[in-house]
Amino acid sequence: MAAVAAATRWRLLLVLSAAGLRVTGAPQPPNILLLLMDDMGWGDLGVYGEPSRETPNLDRMAAEGMLFPNFYTANPLCSPSRAALLTGRLPIRSGFYTTNGHARNAYTPQEIVGGIPDSELLLPELLKEAGYTSKIVGKWHLGHRPQFHPLKHGFDEWFGSPNCHFGPYDNKARPNIPVYRDREMVGRFYEEFPINLKTGEANLTQIYLQEALDFVKRQQAAHRPFFLYWAIDATHAPVYASRPFLGTSRRGRYGDAVREIDDGVGRILHLLRDLSIAENTFVFFTSDNGAALISAPRQGGSNGPFLCGKQTTFEGGMREPAIAWWPGHIPAGQVSHQLGNIMDLFTTSLSLAGLAPPRDRAIDGLDLLPTVLQGRLTDRPIFYYRGNTLMAVTLGQYKAHLWTWTNSWEEFRQGVDFCPGQNVSGVTTHSQEERTKLPLVFHLGRDPGERYPLSIASTEYLDALRWITPVVRQHQEALVPGQPQLNVCNRAVMNWAPPGCEKLGKCLTPPESVPEKCSWPH
Amino acid sequence: MAAVAAATRWRLLLVLSAAGLRVTGAPQPPNILLLLMDDMGWGDLGVYGEPSRETPNLDRMAAEGMLFPNFYTANPLCSPSRAALLTGRLPIRSGFYTTNGHARNAYTPQEIVGGIPDSELLLPELLKEAGYTSKIVGKWHLGHRPQFHPLKHGFDEWFGSPNCHFGPYDNKARPNIPVYRDREMVGRFYEEFPINLKTGEANLTQIYLQEALDFVKRQQAAHRPFFLYWAIDATHAPVYASRPFLGTSRRGRYGDAVREIDDGVGRILHLLRDLSIAENTFVFFTSDNGAALISAPRQGGSNGPFLCGKQTTFEGGMREPAIAWWPGHIPAGQVSHQLGNIMDLFTTSLSLAGLAPPRDRAIDGLDLLPTVLQGRLTDRPIFYYRGNTLMAVTLGQYKAHLWTWTNSWEEFRQGVDFCPGQNVSGVTTHSQEERTKLPLVFHLGRDPGERYPLSIASTEYLDALRWITPVVRQHQEALVPGQPQLNVCNRAVMNWAPPGCEKLGKCLTPPESVPEKCSWPH
Repeated sequence: MAAVAAATRWRLLLVLSAAGLRVTGAPQPPNILLLLMDDMGWGDLGVYGEPSRETPNLDRMAAEGMLFPNFYTANPLCSPSRAALLTGRLPIRSGFYTTNGHARNAYTPQEIVGGIPDSELLLPELLKEAGYTSKIVGKWHLGHRPQFHPLKHGFDEWFGSPNCHFGPYDNKARPNIPVYRDREMVGRFYEEFPINLKTGEANLTQIYLQEALDFVKRQQAAHRPFFLYWAIDATHAPVYASRPFLGTSRRGRYGDAVREIDDGVGRILHLLRDLSIAENTFVFFTSDNGAALISAPRQGGSNGPFLCGKQTTFEGGMREPAIAWWPGHIPAGQVSHQLGNIMDLFTTSLSLAGLAPPRDRAIDGLDLLPTVLQGRLTDRPIFYYRGNTLMAVTLGQYKAHLWTWTNSWEEFRQGVDFCPGQNVSGVTTHSQEERTKLPLVFHLGRDPGERYPLSIASTEYLDALRWITPVVRQHQEALVPGQPQLNVCNRAVMNWAPPGCEKLGKCLTPPESVPEKCSWPH
Repeated sequence: MAAVAAATRWRLLLVLSAAGLRVTGAPQPPNILLLLMDDMGWGDLGVYGEPSRETPNLDRMAAEGMLFPNFYTANPLCSPSRAALLTGRLPIRSGFYTTNGHARNAYTPQEIVGGIPDSELLLPELLKEAGYTSKIVGKWHLGHRPQFHPLKHGFDEWFGSPNCHFGPYDNKARPNIPVYRDREMVGRFYEEFPINLKTGEANLTQIYLQEALDFVKRQQAAHRPFFLYWAIDATHAPVYASRPFLGTSRRGRYGDAVREIDDGVGRILHLLRDLSIAENTFVFFTSDNGAALISAPRQGGSNGPFLCGKQTTFEGGMREPAIAWWPGHIPAGQVSHQLGNIMDLFTTSLSLAGLAPPRDRAIDGLDLLPTVLQGRLTDRPIFYYRGNTLMAVTLGQYKAHLWTWTNSWEEFRQGVDFCPGQNVSGVTTHSQEERTKLPLVFHLGRDPGERYPLSIASTEYLDALRWITPVVRQHQEALVPGQPQLNVCNRAVMNWAPPGCEKLGKCLTPPESVPEKCSWPH
């Protein structure tokens, strides 16, 4: 409640102090630019200790703004964390989970039947009330069937793809993923939008960058407040970079992709300054989940000192790089130990726009404006889910694991390893271990790598549990899960004939409709 | 040879451009201040990604100077690495090794018979030629018997201890470690210099800080160039901090110690600026070996993303935090990927003083002045030894392990683990694995954590070996090991009656002399 009151105060302040004026003369709220990386890890930025230190632009962004060392995503996997960002709600509330297996990660491959429900209110829909024009550049990942299209959920423009850039496919058993401009497809990956898996060359980051720069220029010229969601994917396997960046990193191809992104972020911030709208544009950089260690080192990044990676609820799976930048508003060179979450970007963006979050539903995002502008710290829990299973919770410096699991023994024996080279006895378990009665507790300040569980006989353990247990109970008692969206798959719903395919002569014939349970092995 | 020529050039330049003038009117070479930490890890500084980010002064030092992400010590243990720093030579050349077991780490506990041989030329001895006054504050660790005393090896002043601050001892089976001021002891740890093992309180860092500040002020007032070797030990177990810092870190007691050190470094740099000698003082910050993970998390630090820690020849054992600071000379905000080594501080210091390194012996240190002043990069190998066994070598981005070993199965089963929570199959071996014929090779840029050995069938592997093999061969063929100093122990040589003990009434009676082989289990 304190946070809500603060938000109102800040909204007033912001409205009063807003620098820009609309053509009508009314004060214009700040632009919002969310730079969301794909599978980039906490440890991939120089400012977070990556030894090759190849991110001068991001490091400068941090030096000019606020760095969050304790910022989390809402899920260790892409689709649910993106749903959380845009709804301000845990994926379990919006239905971005599966019940097909216990504690299973799920996302939106192109055979998924579900997607973002109409009942969910997305950030761009809400920002319309404050006159924002919204664009998504890059990966949507909230369902690719017609009713889930981003332009049906508040975005005014889109350039990008509904699913991951996996492929190439044969367009028979499986169609290549389409690339959309707004309502219609303009081609497919590996066809009109080539990705060379052998050399790693693809021009996509440059295209996405151009889309961002063009949009910013157009909105600035039209004196319209904008929301730009730059959801690029060069650091998701198959990792790619354009020719000028290929082979330039000390880190190999993954580093080439990071270097190109770093360069792109530098150009975007530079444009904001050039257009004199930097002081009226709130920029936030983060990632959708931890680095995919299963693809490392050539196709996956680094989670720094943290345990495991993507797909897991250890810190490596969910702690993210995060930088807030807003010259003239956020003092330079700050570090905040606020426990932040990707869902906070929803609430904070609304607050920036002078809007209150919806009152008819549970919202998990916190308004970070008091944090970034005043350095305020607010106690709040971080919940770590796999599917609809609450695996862990962090409060303050303590993290309690209610379940531990990396992936099954069967998978592990086949080479699937989410914690390569890391084996913490009793922690990185290949069987699902329930610990709801006697959680495994870590002090993340002393032990960010989750290697030394507190002794269950210690006072510290008991005190930590006394603090955490009621928070977990309250969360679970009040929780109303949404209808699970990620249970049913059907090859007939794949991207056979997206809108616009006729014009391009790229419509394919779907197979017979056979709905089936999606298989989620981990 | 190119490096030598460069050094000469720089010396000339420096002598010509030296800001200070001696009373005689002759140009005064820059002061040299080496800040050597004890068991502090690469990952312990905010600028290297420590998530709690509690080192604002060190981070600022890096922002104002040059950060080295690829800086190494010469040995994964304290005494040999300190001998290497002060002699510019690998410990195997100066005798700081044991042959009592294969690939065994050894140091100088108080029962050691050996120490730094008179035939070795130490940095302060050589700096005398250029008029420097030298002081060591803190831990000496090159032998505690009379002939090894730092004032017999070039230092003009000493405040500190000859051995680690282990204890308390009963002064019967084992005397407490003495603290010296110059030639004579002024008390013992746990007696005149208390360390409270329960609370972690000790005032030592404050005393060491005051010693440093006083020395700097005195030398500045006397217009004498100085060499200050600040070898403090609060981050070596038992970790300690003074009362104002205790309980202030998010990281627990280890973090308290780091915060106090960070504050102390800030005060030293501040004094240099206050006295207007910052532009005439070269400051270098580093550590003697990797964080002691065996003591973590309460008594040991962090090696960030690197594998294992102290005692091992994996990156966590030997890659160190390193910052060069020299306002007006080293441009601010630089990062150098030069492979640096603690031995370079010897050669670089001589170069700063306008001196050439000794020509009658092999010197392994490189002159880093072209690196810090001009950003020059020089190819050079990094050798990783345990005892007299060459375990690994790094050249460029490639590291080849000729032997792998963490510690024995027997120790491991007893709880001795140098790689807690890290188990890389075939890499972190508990038996000594010889790989001299088919080394285990890592690309440290893509894989700084040494988790993905290159395939021995790959071209990259063959190319890397073709590069590294002749360097190893040349090194081994030319190597002349010194007389091993760390083979013989004798309880009679312990600190029973150090000089000055009579005045204090603190002389103890040694037991009968029984020389024996030192036991070096790992």
